[in-house]
Amino acid sequence: MKLKFGMVGGGGGFIGNVHRQGAQLDVLAVLTAGSFSRNDEKNKETAALWGVEDSNRIYSSYQEMADTEAALPEDIRIDFVSIVTPNNTHYPIAKYFLEKGFHIVCDKPLALTSEQGEELEKLSREKGLLFGVTYTFTGYAIVKQAQEMVKSGMIGKIINIQAEYPQEWLLVGLNAAHSDQATWRMDPQVSGPSGCCADIGSHAESLIYKITGLRPKRVIAKFDTIPKTLKLETNVQILAEYGDGISGLIWTSQVALGHETELRVRIYGETGSLEWSHIKPWELRYTKINEPPQIYTTSRDYLFPSAQRLCRLPTGHIEGYYEAFGNIYREYCTALIAKKNGQDDQNDHRYDYPTVHDGIKGLYFVEACIESNGKNNTWVEVK
Amino acid sequence: MKLKFGMVGGGGGFIGNVHRQGAQLDVLAVLTAGSFSRNDEKNKETAALWGVEDSNRIYSSYQEMADTEAALPEDIRIDFVSIVTPNNTHYPIAKYFLEKGFHIVCDKPLALTSEQGEELEKLSREKGLLFGVTYTFTGYAIVKQAQEMVKSGMIGKIINIQAEYPQEWLLVGLNAAHSDQATWRMDPQVSGPSGCCADIGSHAESLIYKITGLRPKRVIAKFDTIPKTLKLETNVQILAEYGDGISGLIWTSQVALGHETELRVRIYGETGSLEWSHIKPWELRYTKINEPPQIYTTSRDYLFPSAQRLCRLPTGHIEGYYEAFGNIYREYCTALIAKKNGQDDQNDHRYDYPTVHDGIKGLYFVEACIESNGKNNTWVEVK
Amino acid sequence: MKLKFGMVGGGGGFIGNVHRQGAQLDVLAVLTAGSFSRNDEKNKETAALWGVEDSNRIYSSYQEMADTEAALPEDIRIDFVSIVTPNNTHYPIAKYFLEKGFHIVCDKPLALTSEQGEELEKLSREKGLLFGVTYTFTGYAIVKQAQEMVKSGMIGKIINIQAEYPQEWLLVGLNAAHSDQATWRMDPQVSGPSGCCADIGSHAESLIYKITGLRPKRVIAKFDTIPKTLKLETNVQILAEYGDGISGLIWTSQVALGHETELRVRIYGETGSLEWSHIKPWELRYTKINEPPQIYTTSRDYLFPSAQRLCRLPTGHIEGYYEAFGNIYREYCTALIAKKNGQDDQNDHRYDYPTVHDGIKGLYFVEACIESNGKNNTWVEVK
Amino acid sequence: MKLKFGMVGGGGGFIGNVHRQGAQLDVLAVLTAGSFSRNDEKNKETAALWGVEDSNRIYSSYQEMADTEAALPEDIRIDFVSIVTPNNTHYPIAKYFLEKGFHIVCDKPLALTSEQGEELEKLSREKGLLFGVTYTFTGYAIVKQAQEMVKSGMIGKIINIQAEYPQEWLLVGLNAAHSDQATWRMDPQVSGPSGCCADIGSHAESLIYKITGLRPKRVIAKFDTIPKTLKLETNVQILAEYGDGISGLIWTSQVALGHETELRVRIYGETGSLEWSHIKPWELRYTKINEPPQIYTTSRDYLFPSAQRLCRLPTGHIEGYYEAFGNIYREYCTALIAKKNGQDDQNDHRYDYPTVHDGIKGLYFVEACIESNGKNNTWVEVK
Repeated sequence: MKLKFGMVGGGGGFIGNVHRQGAQLDVLAVLTAGSFSRNDEKNKETAALWGVEDSNRIYSSYQEMADTEAALPEDIRIDFVSIVTPNNTHYPIAKYFLEKGFHIVCDKPLALTSEQGEELEKLSREKGLLFGVTYTFTGYAIVKQAQEMVKSGMIGKIINIQAEYPQEWLLVGLNAAHSDQATWRMDPQVSGPSGCCADIGSHAESLIYKITGLRPKRVIAKFDTIPKTLKLETNVQILAEYGDGISGLIWTSQVALGHETELRVRIYGETGSLEWSHIKPWELRYTKINEPPQIYTTSRDYLFPSAQRLCRLPTGHIEGYYEAFGNIYREYCTALIAKKNGQDDQNDHRYDYPTVHDGIKGLYFVEACIESNGKNNTWVEVK
Repeated sequence: MKLKFGMVGGGGGFIGNVHRQGAQLDVLAVLTAGSFSRNDEKNKETAALWGVEDSNRIYSSYQEMADTEAALPEDIRIDFVSIVTPNNTHYPIAKYFLEKGFHIVCDKPLALTSEQGEELEKLSREKGLLFGVTYTFTGYAIVKQAQEMVKSGMIGKIINIQAEYPQEWLLVGLNAAHSDQATWRMDPQVSGPSGCCADIGSHAESLIYKITGLRPKRVIAKFDTIPKTLKLETNVQILAEYGDGISGLIWTSQVALGHETELRVRIYGETGSLEWSHIKPWELRYTKINEPPQIYTTSRDYLFPSAQRLCRLPTGHIEGYYEAFGNIYREYCTALIAKKNGQDDQNDHRYDYPTVHDGIKGLYFVEACIESNGKNNTWVEVK
Repeated sequence: MKLKFGMVGGGGGFIGNVHRQGAQLDVLAVLTAGSFSRNDEKNKETAALWGVEDSNRIYSSYQEMADTEAALPEDIRIDFVSIVTPNNTHYPIAKYFLEKGFHIVCDKPLALTSEQGEELEKLSREKGLLFGVTYTFTGYAIVKQAQEMVKSGMIGKIINIQAEYPQEWLLVGLNAAHSDQATWRMDPQVSGPSGCCADIGSHAESLIYKITGLRPKRVIAKFDTIPKTLKLETNVQILAEYGDGISGLIWTSQVALGHETELRVRIYGETGSLEWSHIKPWELRYTKINEPPQIYTTSRDYLFPSAQRLCRLPTGHIEGYYEAFGNIYREYCTALIAKKNGQDDQNDHRYDYPTVHDGIKGLYFVEACIESNGKNNTWVEVK
Repeated sequence: MKLKFGMVGGGGGFIGNVHRQGAQLDVLAVLTAGSFSRNDEKNKETAALWGVEDSNRIYSSYQEMADTEAALPEDIRIDFVSIVTPNNTHYPIAKYFLEKGFHIVCDKPLALTSEQGEELEKLSREKGLLFGVTYTFTGYAIVKQAQEMVKSGMIGKIINIQAEYPQEWLLVGLNAAHSDQATWRMDPQVSGPSGCCADIGSHAESLIYKITGLRPKRVIAKFDTIPKTLKLETNVQILAEYGDGISGLIWTSQVALGHETELRVRIYGETGSLEWSHIKPWELRYTKINEPPQIYTTSRDYLFPSAQRLCRLPTGHIEGYYEAFGNIYREYCTALIAKKNGQDDQNDHRYDYPTVHDGIKGLYFVEACIESNGKNNTWVEVK
């Protein structure tokens, strides 16, 4: 069975194409409809480029798309929609499609507020619809391996967690001609009440959760707006407690020169440690107490089967960003196919992709950080 | 304009899917026909998986495919065929399709002998058909940057070239259950007269050529067959001369434990040096004389435009093996579209992809190495 | 002129020998006297090993040493004393020697409390005596280069500072037979009121100061005692403000498996960044905005003269821990020789070694961290 | 017991001081006499600097030193002499001291020809004198670990050896003001008949032998003189056979921009591999077949005792070039002390330092390479 899906957004920026590739990588879904841009020409161009040939299924608005597709016979209409628009439109679009009965994949952040997120989750539960949120980095195969290693006790009881996600693009962009991204991401009307924390802090938090199953219970956060002329923070430093005596730091920045996209998570346990970095996202550094560090890589016999399953190429052949997206889509689509075959439902965790629930947790985290930053950097509980 | 292409082979192994993805990455070509396997069921399965829905265009043999497609109207039939079968069948398949007037993309090696290769080149010239050969690693964006840097004099006159391509898979495979690849690759009937040298030595040679424009003029080669029970060499060491006082070493191995796919090329000049390694294929280490080494990366403003053009994602987002293939297909398809639009021909080098001519050069190189190895490791001229 | 020096402590552990080597590396000082151990046999053995041949200058106590040496003619008696005993004895020993008129080199931490430190500084000023404190890592040649680069504006205005110093030795040691170091370092009677923060947090703080000239103005600190059975903290996380909108994180740990001695400091500016790590202490990663990162190394013509001066070997020859100590001693001894020649005094900063004043600043920092940790991790001003 | 030693040379360059430090690192020997320079002033200055205070033991020539010291009572005169002069004087100086009954440490190369070397070995055997040759890199502690791992079968039967030692200093030096080293090293009258091969190829060869116990049985060598105006080769490429089907490449260069002192050896076996690089000389990368690579480091419990014995500092504290020399001197001095105590002789291999025999083997290797280069790069047996 192959799924059909539509896309809202994607006519600008690079992320729409990443979703398209990710969804189609394992040929589980075919792009069948879309409302790629509010600019009519751009909309048609994108449709043509991406092979959506039926002009009746190129829509000038997401509402029209939802309404029209919902009216098509079940075997014709799209199974799910991918939402890849700017942050502030995720909530209304997702809500509209849920109400019309469509399964959803939404880029992160899920919404601008956790209330919006909770509403979306409630709706998806009521309607029995699958709702994935694309926390990209959780899709890397070796991250799955890290999760399994922690679960199986290979580092013992966790004692500390260090995460960072420094980027330089905003500062570079402000000094160069091409600051389009910088512009909308720094506009609270579009991005929401947080800049750096929501944009990439949430990636760090979701990755920690993916690997350890832990989320911050309370945080002290400090936001810096660099340069001062911007409207949202660009540098975020967080002291977090995960319960059971486990603490950690999270640093994320969009103004840290020398770093392109350097998400890194290190998990320390009583008998071992794990380090994953996006600089070589197919590697995992594993140290057992008083033994030499070991470098695990993808596509190896020694990996857990659940991690092996996410590898597509022979050892040493680089799988990158598209493939990480592909892994998230593969899990989502497989779950959806199973559901359509009556084998599964949203509460079954056989399929491992980030859901609307993870999206809400991410918003709780960001909201607690915003609050702590406003309260002179004192402890704030994460909902 | 979107091209239509067919595929011969691909129903087993991973490489067919890589070609499929590569060809479709930039939506320049659509898989429209195929003879994916001589096993009927496998053939149909693959067609279904990859979205070749017209059962009339799923063929039980490559001959049938060539014959039938050639008889279709020009706007319906495939524009080119991708050949991803085992080595020994490249020549007859390519020849058959050329004779029927199809453009070709062929996995390397082009053929088992240079005579076969020359015949294919002659045929493609006579017929005015584009013929690409997928030397994967030449497709990485930063490799294009390396080429431009050499060309523009940023390392001065070249004085030495060091290349290596160690792999461990064969030794690992022989010690594990899954030695399918090991089996056919070590069979001279299928692989041809050379194992390691043809399989991966040719990658090293083509990459050196891509970056420097130089090819070995003469070689001393030593082949080792490890373990001794195999029928083809698995470890190759080459001393090469490139003319103008430039020499270098090439080492390739399939039995070098600790290395997955570690192709590496280092070019030394009188005023600078360049190092590229497949371990981080988006990086280039550049050293100017008496200055600190610099690390160039993809998607940066400071790259040459021709290299920037091959980058699809923001800085720091990993593009890997699929994308390298995608770049080769992009150049090939763009050239083909231009040709169909009357703007180009095979002799125009505006589009930079490895051609049948490079495939022949690769065979000359392998043949000279085989000869030197048989002549007590003495110098042999490369044709 | 060659200086004569004595040593208190050193008969156990490795650090005495490091001081001995460091002091003698450039032949500026000769070990002439010592009270190496309270164990008489150990004392004599160490003296013999290290070439202190005059049995009259091997002392059974530091008091005896100070008294006796002070009574010797000026051209015979030691010029300075190196104090390498456990933390809790630094203060009384330093005080005693100052009172007798000796210049001092003291291992860090200077004392157990800042009051003790202030008293030592006051005394050294009154007596006009040089007082060095061996913050090892500030001695690396390339760290000097980093300082000069910041000073000369090569990274622009500083905007953020990230530092970490993870170690694993304590956790490894507790699980192995050899936990001697673990024992005394975890005893507040010997180590003072802080464990990890005083022991290695102070290294991070002093290194930040060395490179940037900045010290934390206020801190939020969180101490974790892992395992819980210990008496002092082993994991420390600090949020720091350096004034002028500059903030940063400091993480130090003695229970972080996978890290041996991995001090790392990263300084981010508006137009560039610097990264130094003890993993390769002869390297400096420098990124100018929108340019490729560069790797500076020691012994190169392109370094600032003040950094070149600290390099002893040709490029690429590793200088390590002994040499870093050697650089601190070289600056100290050169200053002392200049002083004895009437060319300098303690307030002159031509010679760049960490002083008693830096030692006090280090204690202020630790005390503020202790206080913040006790006050529910709220901001505490650093004196 | 502490040994007394003298030094010939050292008044210029850096290597004398490295020998001095190395010899004294573990306080096994004291510098007692010297003929540091033929320039009288330089000679005295160096003596004063290095603490040779007895003016009767500062000699204006090596002959005078040998003659005079030999006439001193046994408990007064030096035990051994360190020879750190330019290459062409090693042989006459060593011979003279051997004839006078002194044990020897000589910098490499041992002599200009193997005949000279054989004469020195014969003489040292006849006289029962210890003769060490300082192949620096064999002194690193983790190199000893590598040797033990190979010996104990941890990589299985060896199948291939790859070594390289690229440097850039000569090309950098020729383009800068400071080309002193370049001058004498490129003069055949001083350096002997080989430049790069003798100077650093010999380091690669000795390191391979240290780790594997194997020496090349025959070689194909190609020498390049870059720039052409020099008198000796600066770039060397060697294809070597070690017997038993084991082959390998060696590349050494003094004109390879981007490399400071990057000696690297990789040993491939049937069940594992080892990689050591001077870039991080305290690390060893070890891969067991189908397991993740492991990073061994110094000062760890898991090392072989013989390797642990060579580590002086806690884990993660860098020991570099001085300490590698220190290890060679420690083994040498310990052997000499044992010998003087009647416990050992030259044929006993309990103490592991490179000897005059290794020096000769190194000369055989260089001579075979010279011959092969002169014979159109054909195979030449190594004596």
